[in-house]
Amino acid sequence: MPVGTYGAVKSLEVNDLKQIGSQIILGNTFHLNLRPSLDIISHFKGLHNFINWQAPILTDSGGFQVFSLGKLRKITEEGVQFRSPINGDKLFISPEKSIDIQHQLGSDIIMVFDECTPYPATYHEVEKSMQLSMRWAKRCYDFHHTNTQDHGTKRGALFPIIQGGMHLDLRKNSIEMLQEIEYKGQYNEFKGMALGGFSVGEPMELMYKTLSEIMPFVPTDKPRYLMGVGRPLDILHSISCGVDMFDCVLPSRNARNGNLFTWQGILKLRNARYKKDDKPIDENCTCLACQHYSRAYLHHLDKINESLGDRLCTIHNLHFYHELTAQARLAIEENHFNQFHQHNQHLHNPIA
Amino acid sequence: MPVGTYGAVKSLEVNDLKQIGSQIILGNTFHLNLRPSLDIISHFKGLHNFINWQAPILTDSGGFQVFSLGKLRKITEEGVQFRSPINGDKLFISPEKSIDIQHQLGSDIIMVFDECTPYPATYHEVEKSMQLSMRWAKRCYDFHHTNTQDHGTKRGALFPIIQGGMHLDLRKNSIEMLQEIEYKGQYNEFKGMALGGFSVGEPMELMYKTLSEIMPFVPTDKPRYLMGVGRPLDILHSISCGVDMFDCVLPSRNARNGNLFTWQGILKLRNARYKKDDKPIDENCTCLACQHYSRAYLHHLDKINESLGDRLCTIHNLHFYHELTAQARLAIEENHFNQFHQHNQHLHNPIA
Repeated sequence: MPVGTYGAVKSLEVNDLKQIGSQIILGNTFHLNLRPSLDIISHFKGLHNFINWQAPILTDSGGFQVFSLGKLRKITEEGVQFRSPINGDKLFISPEKSIDIQHQLGSDIIMVFDECTPYPATYHEVEKSMQLSMRWAKRCYDFHHTNTQDHGTKRGALFPIIQGGMHLDLRKNSIEMLQEIEYKGQYNEFKGMALGGFSVGEPMELMYKTLSEIMPFVPTDKPRYLMGVGRPLDILHSISCGVDMFDCVLPSRNARNGNLFTWQGILKLRNARYKKDDKPIDENCTCLACQHYSRAYLHHLDKINESLGDRLCTIHNLHFYHELTAQARLAIEENHFNQFHQHNQHLHNPIA
Repeated sequence: MPVGTYGAVKSLEVNDLKQIGSQIILGNTFHLNLRPSLDIISHFKGLHNFINWQAPILTDSGGFQVFSLGKLRKITEEGVQFRSPINGDKLFISPEKSIDIQHQLGSDIIMVFDECTPYPATYHEVEKSMQLSMRWAKRCYDFHHTNTQDHGTKRGALFPIIQGGMHLDLRKNSIEMLQEIEYKGQYNEFKGMALGGFSVGEPMELMYKTLSEIMPFVPTDKPRYLMGVGRPLDILHSISCGVDMFDCVLPSRNARNGNLFTWQGILKLRNARYKKDDKPIDENCTCLACQHYSRAYLHHLDKINESLGDRLCTIHNLHFYHELTAQARLAIEENHFNQFHQHNQHLHNPIA
C-alpha cells in the first residue's frame, strides 16, 4: 500500500496510482485530523470524495504518530494528551475518538488505536505497554460495534494490532487477548490481524527472527498485515513467514532521495556515472518513467530539484513494489516462492 | 509558449503538456548551458531527445539572463564575461557562441543574442545598447548562415530582436537596421521578428503605449513575437496591436503561488473561503485539475506544500492561457476581437 499521509501519495495524482496499479492506499488519521481537519473531510462525506480516490483506503489509528511525538505527549489509561505539532494546541485522542475519526473519514480498513512500544524497552515496559494496547483494542472493538452514528460514509473493516515487542511470549499473549475480545464480543468485528511495533529501531535480524517465530501463531483465516515494513527483502522475508499486507513510505521517500529499486539492485541516481546514461532506470520496466525518460534526464531533474523528477521516480519505485509483490504472489501460486526469494537476495545491493 | 527553463516546464511531464495542448515550449540557453551542460545535451543529439519532447522548442539566446546577473557580468563589444551563478566559474558568451549553443541544442526557433536594455535608462544609454544589439544581430545572422558544423541536430529558424526601449524612433531605427542586415545578407535567415526589452520594470501603460506605436512598423510577413509578456490582459492588448507569439513564466509561476486564472477573474487559492469549496477552479474548464479536483482539495495541497498541487494548478493555468489565445484567434477569425477584448476586461480582478 502506497502511503498518502495527508491524502496524497507525495507528488502523485490519482491517475498515476491507477496506472501503476495501486488498489489501496494508506492515509494517516493523526495527520488528516490536523490538516485539512475532520470538519472539512466530513463536509465532503469522507476522504474518498475529498481526494477523489474511489478505491479502498486504510487508515492507521494515530497511535504510531502520537508515539513519535516523544515528550509532546502524555499517555494515560483514558488516552493520549498531546500538543498539535502544527499550532501547539492541546489535543486529546482516545481509542473511541480514533475509531470515530476513522468512521468519519470513511476508511475501508480501520486500525485499532494502540501504543506503539518503543525499542529498546525492558520486558516489564513492553508487557505493560502491550496490556494497555489490548485494553484499548477492546474499547475500539466495542466502540466500532456500537457507534451507529451516520456520517454519510460507509463503515469499514476493523483490524486489531498485535504488540509485545521482540518477546515471543508477550506476542502470543497479545494474540490470545485479541482473540478473547472477539470471542467475548461475538460480533466478528476483527476482519484482519496486524503486527505493530516492528521496524521501530531494532536490528533487522531481530525483527526477522521475531517475525518468523510469531507468525505461526497468528490466525490464518484473515489477512495478516505487517505495519510499516519495509525494504524489498524485508517484504520477501515477511511473505515467506506468511504476511499478506504491507505499507511503507520507503518506495516513495527513497524515490525522492534518488534511490531507485530495480530487479538488478538499487540504482543511486545521484551518482555522476548516470549523467550521460541514455538507458531507462530499468530496461524491462513498463512504468511511465522507464518508458519515456533516461537516467541522464532523471539525474538532471534531481540536480535542479525539479518536482517532475520526484514524480517520475516515485512512479518507478511504486511500480517496482507492486511488481515485486505480484511476482511473489505468482511464485506462491506456482509453488516456487523459496526459489524466487533466494534468487533475489541481491535486491538491496547497488547495481553493478 | 510555456517556459521550461532547464528543460522541464516546472512540475509537468511531456504528456501533461500534450494533454493541455501545448505545441511549442521555451528553453533557456543560458541555464541549459550550465545545467545539465552542452556536453550532455550533445550526447543526446539535442534537447528534444534529452527531454523527450518531439514538438518545437524555442530557445532564448541568454541575453536576458546575462543582463539579469547585474554586477556579475561585464559587457564588451566582443560579448559578455560573467561568473557562473552555479560555481563561480569565469564564463564568456558572444553572439557566435550563443547561436552555436542553440544549434547544438537543436532548437526549432533560435533567438539572436542581444543586450536587454534596462529600464529606466537615458536616451543615450538606450541608443548605445540598441546599436550594440544590432551589431550583435548581424554577427548572429552571419554565424547562423555560415556555421555548417553538423551536430546531428536540425538547423532552426533564426528570429532577430527589436530593441530601443520606450523610444519610438530608436525602435524604428532598430527595425530598419534588422531589415538592412537581411537585405544585405540576401539569405532570408530571419524567420520572425521579436520585440525585446519590454516588461523589464516600466509602467504597464508605457509598455502598452510603446507597443501600440511601434507595432505598425514591424513587418507583417513573419510571426511577431513579444518576449516575456505577460498577464492575460497584456496578451489581449498585444494581440490587438498585432502580436502573434508570447512566452511567459507567469501562468506556471502564479500557479505555484496559488493565483489561478479563470474566465471570471483570478482565484486566490490560499483564501480561507476555499477550504470547504467543492467546486472545481472553473466549472467550465476541461483541464485535468478541474475535471477531477475541488478547490478545497487544491487549497489543502497548497497548505501542505504538496507538489501535486503545483502540478494541478500549473496544468490549469497553462490550459487557461492556451484557451485564452485560442479564443482570441477564433475572435479574430470571426471578426469580433475588439468585442472579445472589451468583454474580458475583468480578467485581472479577483473573482467575486
